[in-house]
Parts: sequence; structure tokens; C-alpha cells
Amino acid sequence: MAARSSDPEATRAAILGVARLQFGERGFDRTTIRSVATAAGVDPALVMHYFRNKAGLFAEASRVDVRIPDLSGVPPERLASVLVPFFVADWGPDGRLLPLLRAAASNRAAADTLVEMFTEYVAPALGALAVDRPEERAAMIGSQVVGVAVARHIIGLPALVDMDDATLADWLGPTIARYLTA
Amino acid sequence: MAARSSDPEATRAAILGVARLQFGERGFDRTTIRSVATAAGVDPALVMHYFRNKAGLFAEASRVDVRIPDLSGVPPERLASVLVPFFVADWGPDGRLLPLLRAAASNRAAADTLVEMFTEYVAPALGALAVDRPEERAAMIGSQVVGVAVARHIIGLPALVDMDDATLADWLGPTIARYLTA
Repeated sequence: MAARSSDPEATRAAILGVARLQFGERGFDRTTIRSVATAAGVDPALVMHYFRNKAGLFAEASRVDVRIPDLSGVPPERLASVLVPFFVADWGPDGRLLPLLRAAASNRAAADTLVEMFTEYVAPALGALAVDRPEERAAMIGSQVVGVAVARHIIGLPALVDMDDATLADWLGPTIARYLTA
Repeated sequence: MAARSSDPEATRAAILGVARLQFGERGFDRTTIRSVATAAGVDPALVMHYFRNKAGLFAEASRVDVRIPDLSGVPPERLASVLVPFFVADWGPDGRLLPLLRAAASNRAAADTLVEMFTEYVAPALGALAVDRPEERAAMIGSQVVGVAVARHIIGLPALVDMDDATLADWLGPTIARYLTA
């Protein structure tokens, strides 16, 4: 891939595209600044100029996937059914958040990226609901959502691996609803 | 530590004790059959004789911590309050399951150990409750419990890190109760 463009934005996007591919295929540990730079056709120094270090590159490469639905105007009884399919898909086997989650187990920078994404996107979305203790509610929802991702896709509990998305959503719905509003 | 006893059971226990210490302090990747053997004062071949490989040693060293309370005879409305404090403590910062969970993120053998422990201990405990779909219920409980451990101790979501165990148990109780019996 040649990214020798004079357009910094295009170069940056090309580096991120390669980084997503490599982090996804090789994981955090086996992806390097150098391997990304080589595949993107740029100097490693340029990658560091844009993203500082591997953790920064990883954070940016993983960040794009978070798009919490706008919850303002959604009636309380429909909140869970709006959120649950989103969570199931975003952490699913095709979701880009799983590599970040795997990396977080042994890498503080990756864990911090998850905390930042949570603080920036998830918590404020729930904050708009005008309930008490929004941070606690958001954290409990986060724990259940992340737990399904870990149990289903990382640990691989057979009953969760075999469960279809609709059944999973049926199990999760009332839990998320209670954390949102009870 | 000298484990040159002629008592195989004592030698095996000494190796396991050293392994727990090293896995806990250094993590899975930086603990080796050799480092454990050296600290236990035995030949590496003996460690492999007892545990086959590092994954086997790790599995045995991590296995001891699982002791699900006996649920037979516990009235349904009290099930959650029996289980929740147990889960909170067992996955807490002092619990021995966290290293196994961290390792599972990048190591299939560690993930398989968690699946085996779950299948051997958690699922049957719930199977005794005579509810429908016991495997699904056990897996949903597993997902919530593992998710709290990940969000609180590995990712470190501030609202969960700051939450005391009693408040966490209040949030978890109705969720676990619903997965058990609803």
C-alpha cells in the first residue's frame, strides 16, 4: 500500500487502515510501529509523529467503532431494546472492540483506552436520561456488556457461543433495562 | 524452598504452591516450568511429569479457588444473596481467578481451563435448581460475574473501582436472581 501522498489526512487514514488490519489479524503484541509503517509505505518516524507510540496508534485504530445510539427522546421502556442489539453487534466476532479488550488484559494503555471510550461515549449517553447515579448505572451496563463479550468470544462458554443473538438479547434486555431505570 | 521429599503428594503440593505464587506475581507469560522448578527445588522434568506443561500447571494452580456454595435447600428468593458475595470475593483483587482471566485473553489453554471450571462447578450447581435451560442461565450469570471482574479489576471503570462491595452486591442481586429463576 503506497501512502506517499502529500495529503497528511490521507496518509494518517492510510496508516490507521493498515493498523486496524494488523491489530485485528496479529493482535496487539505482534503488531509493531515498524510493521504498520512498512505495510503503509511510510517511515516509522511518521507513524510516531502522528500517534506517538504503539498504544496511541492502537487507541486511534480501535476508537472508530464506538457509536452509541442517541437515547434522547427514546421512551424508557424502549431503551433496552434500542441498546441491546447495538451492544451485541459491536462486541461480536466481527466487532473491532474485541482486540482492544484482549489487549487490555495485559496492557494498561489499552485498558485506559477502553475507560476513555466509556467515559466519552457510554456514560454521557446515559447521563442524558436524568436518572440518579448515572455513572454507576453506566458502569453496571458496561460490566454486563463486556462480560458477554468475554464469556462468549474470549473464554467461549459453550452455552453462550451456541446462543443466537435474538436469545441473547432476550436475556440481556431486562438486565439492561433495570440498570438503566430501576 | 526444598521439596526434595520422598512424598509425591507433598512434592506436588509444594510445586503448586510455588506456581501459584509465581503466576500471581509475574503473570502467565513470565512464569516458566523452569522458574517454578528452580524455586521449588525440583527438576523441571518432575514438574512436567506431574502437570505435563505450563498450561496444565497453570490450570491446576488456578483450580483450587472454585468453591460454589451448596445451593440445594436454599430457598429461591435467597439464592442471589448466597451467590453474590461469593462471586464478588472470588473475583476480587485478592482472588486467584484474575490471573487466569488475564491469561485467557491471549491463551487458549487458560480460556479452556475457565470453561472446564465453569462446566465442572458452576453449571452443575445451578442444574440442581430444577429450572429450564440451566446451561443458559449459568452462562448468563457467568457473563455478568466475569464482566464485573473485567470492568472493575482489569479495565478499571472508575465507578466500579470506587464502588464498595455492598453497593455492588445490591446492583448484582436482582440480575443474578433473574438469571437464576425468571
